[in-house]
Amino acid sequence: MEGYQKGLDGVIAVQTEISLVNGKEGILRYRGYDIADIARSRTFEEVAYLLWFGEFPTPDELEKLTSQMASQRELSPAASTTVNAMDVKTNPIDVLRTVISAQAATDRLIKPTQEDAIATAASIPTLLATFYRRRQGEDAIPPREDLGHAANYLYMLTGEEPDESHVAALNAYLVMLADHGMNASTFTARVIASTGSDLASSLVGAIGALKGPLHGGAPSYVMEQLAEVRGRDVEEWAQEMLARRERFMGFGHPIYRTYDPRARILREMAEELNPDFFATASKVEEVVLRLLTERYPDRPMATNVEFYSAGVLEFIGLPTILFTPTFATSRAVGWSAHVLEQVRQQEERTSKIIRPQSEYIGPIRDPEVSAARS
Amino acid sequence: MEGYQKGLDGVIAVQTEISLVNGKEGILRYRGYDIADIARSRTFEEVAYLLWFGEFPTPDELEKLTSQMASQRELSPAASTTVNAMDVKTNPIDVLRTVISAQAATDRLIKPTQEDAIATAASIPTLLATFYRRRQGEDAIPPREDLGHAANYLYMLTGEEPDESHVAALNAYLVMLADHGMNASTFTARVIASTGSDLASSLVGAIGALKGPLHGGAPSYVMEQLAEVRGRDVEEWAQEMLARRERFMGFGHPIYRTYDPRARILREMAEELNPDFFATASKVEEVVLRLLTERYPDRPMATNVEFYSAGVLEFIGLPTILFTPTFATSRAVGWSAHVLEQVRQQEERTSKIIRPQSEYIGPIRDPEVSAARS
Repeated sequence: MEGYQKGLDGVIAVQTEISLVNGKEGILRYRGYDIADIARSRTFEEVAYLLWFGEFPTPDELEKLTSQMASQRELSPAASTTVNAMDVKTNPIDVLRTVISAQAATDRLIKPTQEDAIATAASIPTLLATFYRRRQGEDAIPPREDLGHAANYLYMLTGEEPDESHVAALNAYLVMLADHGMNASTFTARVIASTGSDLASSLVGAIGALKGPLHGGAPSYVMEQLAEVRGRDVEEWAQEMLARRERFMGFGHPIYRTYDPRARILREMAEELNPDFFATASKVEEVVLRLLTERYPDRPMATNVEFYSAGVLEFIGLPTILFTPTFATSRAVGWSAHVLEQVRQQEERTSKIIRPQSEYIGPIRDPEVSAARS
Repeated sequence: MEGYQKGLDGVIAVQTEISLVNGKEGILRYRGYDIADIARSRTFEEVAYLLWFGEFPTPDELEKLTSQMASQRELSPAASTTVNAMDVKTNPIDVLRTVISAQAATDRLIKPTQEDAIATAASIPTLLATFYRRRQGEDAIPPREDLGHAANYLYMLTGEEPDESHVAALNAYLVMLADHGMNASTFTARVIASTGSDLASSLVGAIGALKGPLHGGAPSYVMEQLAEVRGRDVEEWAQEMLARRERFMGFGHPIYRTYDPRARILREMAEELNPDFFATASKVEEVVLRLLTERYPDRPMATNVEFYSAGVLEFIGLPTILFTPTFATSRAVGWSAHVLEQVRQQEERTSKIIRPQSEYIGPIRDPEVSAARS
């Protein structure tokens, strides 16, 4: 443990039983289960149960969680007031950050609980749909208790019975994005939780980290970039991008040294569900990967989860402005599972406050110098 | 760099030119200057300038920053709406977290700027004082441009010309708490900034971390504990606490292996300014340090910055509920200086997204097991 660990690259900051990311072999496991085995066959509620409680639910347990989540979709008065007070032009990720903070604001410090984790995850689609409809000049659609998490989110956005293929695609997306080892937002949530703070503080910090374009802010930029390239010669466009040293959105990942298993599934889904998108995207992928590999032969340049996510979310009919907030809708389950794990580990003394060191690289000064200067 | 680094203890995650914490010798330096040389002789604005820009200001530079901050104290319409919409019983640290998020909510991603850092730091006392007075059923007092940062904060809380000794004590407190290496909240701010997110997201995450009782949430608990012990036999009370394995508030620090230099100055101030508090506190300190050293001879058990802070803030007349938010008022300067440094270092490629690894310690499972179970 000597010297500056830039970006904490390769440093093991956390032990977890929640997910395993094997970047070398391109495997992601939730509580030991391979994402490839569960992404398209399990409901978001089943996977949320798995991440929170460590096992897939029995039918009774699933029924209980599903109805618990369905019954907690309504916005609290504080959440409703805040959603309706915000400028309609606001980016929904900023609305989410603010409303999660406002709805949990209280007179005392509340230790994170499983109940609060479930209630918060249940309410996120409602607050996003309520704000989005207000933004469009439309009335909010109250949640429906008879629909699952994915279906109800789409229903609250449109007011229409959602198409089964859209529900299945959104469900798979939500399942695949729910947790992913020590990414920057999950790490943020755990650092905040490690001080003994509350669940909302952790989630609000995580949302802020997810907003960054180096993390969850990328999928909407993928759509912008593909719109730019449509109708152009892809090779020529990519060469121009390289010459201007611009970033290709949706490529590169700090962990995967082979194809991201989620990107692989999302690629299949995009090919099947959104052929127009796929035609451009797969051409861009082929050219960009080839050019990047030529230019940076030592740098692994896999397509990341954001790239084909964009095509799947477009198929579902989600507006690009809801891409990152929808990522947060899913990841809120992983974040809260990690917060609860952090709290438990600190009680068991297998973890403690996360507080690294900094190395001072500035000068040492004499007070007289400043006295003379001012 | 092998194995799990519990709490990232001793891991150097960040290089900084902002502050140096030498825990072994009990020295804290801002931009190279010893805190002991500047704590009681510099204004908060001078020190904010130092932390943000790297040098103490010339008279012209100080005049410019002081008037810039004074002119940006008014709440924005979004901040004002949010402060006035929140339940009056809310903890002011939750109000701060929510309002900083709400006032920066926007339609696009804004890269952190020095201007925004100054404006945000300038507005925090106003939003705290506005909320606190509302909580007390009193009208807000508009800020006064002719007063310094510390004096104006006290003026907005009471509506009265603040006492010079209160202003000087609050100024010294704000100067001493403005930065402190890689504490959990500053680290949170840098992790969030490292994703390319905005200043408000970083600050909101940092406020959430500061709220934790293992970080900035402690000073109000110090007052509670001292109230408990007043009039009792200190030795007997401390023995009972030890027997119940309860935490002594205001003792222990992850870094200092000797007396915290800020605690030393605050102790002197408390003795001089708040003799009633000091009589109980110094007796508690003596007994607690002796008992802890007897019981845990290998664990360094220095009095931390929260312990005597409580007596200084009480002297100033600050209500205990504003102790942690006032800490945030000061630390907001350090947080934003670190966010700007993180952004610059990523541009210069001396830093990058802060994303450690996690070690998976759960089982690997077979999909059939789950199929059988559900």
